[in-house]
Amino acid sequence: MRIVRFKAAGTTRYGVLDGTHIIEYSGTPYGTFKKARKRYSIKQAVFLAPVVPSKVVAVGLNYRDHAEEMRLALPEEPRIFLKPLSALCGPDDPIIYPSQSRQVDYEGELAIVIRKRCRHVPAERAREYVLGYTCINDVTARDLQRRDGQPTRAKAFDSFCPVGPCIATDIEPNAVEIETWVNGERRQAGSTKAFIFPVEDLIARISAVMTLLPGDVIATGTPAGVGPLEPGDRVEVRIEGIGSLKNPVIKL
Amino acid sequence: MRIVRFKAAGTTRYGVLDGTHIIEYSGTPYGTFKKARKRYSIKQAVFLAPVVPSKVVAVGLNYRDHAEEMRLALPEEPRIFLKPLSALCGPDDPIIYPSQSRQVDYEGELAIVIRKRCRHVPAERAREYVLGYTCINDVTARDLQRRDGQPTRAKAFDSFCPVGPCIATDIEPNAVEIETWVNGERRQAGSTKAFIFPVEDLIARISAVMTLLPGDVIATGTPAGVGPLEPGDRVEVRIEGIGSLKNPVIKL
Repeated sequence: MRIVRFKAAGTTRYGVLDGTHIIEYSGTPYGTFKKARKRYSIKQAVFLAPVVPSKVVAVGLNYRDHAEEMRLALPEEPRIFLKPLSALCGPDDPIIYPSQSRQVDYEGELAIVIRKRCRHVPAERAREYVLGYTCINDVTARDLQRRDGQPTRAKAFDSFCPVGPCIATDIEPNAVEIETWVNGERRQAGSTKAFIFPVEDLIARISAVMTLLPGDVIATGTPAGVGPLEPGDRVEVRIEGIGSLKNPVIKL
Repeated sequence: MRIVRFKAAGTTRYGVLDGTHIIEYSGTPYGTFKKARKRYSIKQAVFLAPVVPSKVVAVGLNYRDHAEEMRLALPEEPRIFLKPLSALCGPDDPIIYPSQSRQVDYEGELAIVIRKRCRHVPAERAREYVLGYTCINDVTARDLQRRDGQPTRAKAFDSFCPVGPCIATDIEPNAVEIETWVNGERRQAGSTKAFIFPVEDLIARISAVMTLLPGDVIATGTPAGVGPLEPGDRVEVRIEGIGSLKNPVIKL
């Protein structure tokens, strides 16, 4: 199923995509989640970030092709960093180009959504703790990342973490096509088959450090082809079986 | 006033310290906050982390003496990183020594607690957005920090962010004594007068990147004298006008 969070008739709800419609669900996908009576046309709904996490953990370098592009040795362990919740936004929300930066890059990524609380999960049981997968754009002020020598500030600006449009529960996360498009032109194209650390391994290694909670997000790294965005651009992260996360870029 | 969050008779409450007692308050310190009728003896109460943040932002190098100790040039801008909420704990909670590390260091710090939502705050108005100040121990697996070349994982373990015991609203944050003690021996001693970036400047610079919300925490960096903890140790961060944040170190 493809789970969405959306606003319709002034209220935030969960639902499941069904062709051109959303079937409303009661409860949350982390507990009791039941089909309700209402259906909404997709046109009536405003899609929100499908997750309400306590944290967004991101992985620095996780595609063999991106490592080659950046001329970096393959890491022995995933490098992690955190994005603040104030950076989260949803489908169609604007990415705001900050005045401090001269180079804001897109980074299309597959995101894991955690279903239940876990710590010290062995890789072979990791899938039990996953609700599903969504698209994320790990927007990065590349010039600030270089200047700081570490990623936190560069990736922490408000609006630098678009997520959505849905959580797909039935895809094979280590074998999907992922693409990023800017103004209708394809800029990134890869397959999660090139993961250095597959989904199970990331969950095992990250949960060895910290407790993961329902709704927590792990951004799994970006494939080759990262590049800049400009105000006025429209950027789109597409993942097979999930859908398309589109956001305009604006300057205030 | 010195604001605490505590558990008494099975319920979590806010209160204000009054000698050997806590006066219960209704509401929250971020909105309506009113003296209630009940008083509790400090002995009846279990102190909790006094904050419930949406994020903990920490600053890498912010004392002139610590920069000298580490033989580092003074930074032109604060280096920030984030600690996950899963790392938060309160007074007397154990710091759990992780099996992945061979060197876990204390870092006693003054923490700013944000009172109301803000973004792009000029330094001269920063104090309007502060509720008060508390002690934080930015516990760090130093060997992992070195190996990763960046701080996130090393500082993200569960229990690596003790906070408390109270939020002091009336101290002068840029001129207090700060000390860290291990097993009754003083290991760090400094004054926030040695801040490279004073409190107002940190709020201005961090809020230029991200929206700060009520309860959000900014850890302002650690003075000279960082060093290792061992299982069995008792570590204590003391700040003038706030009090003492004590935590035992254990190995599971």
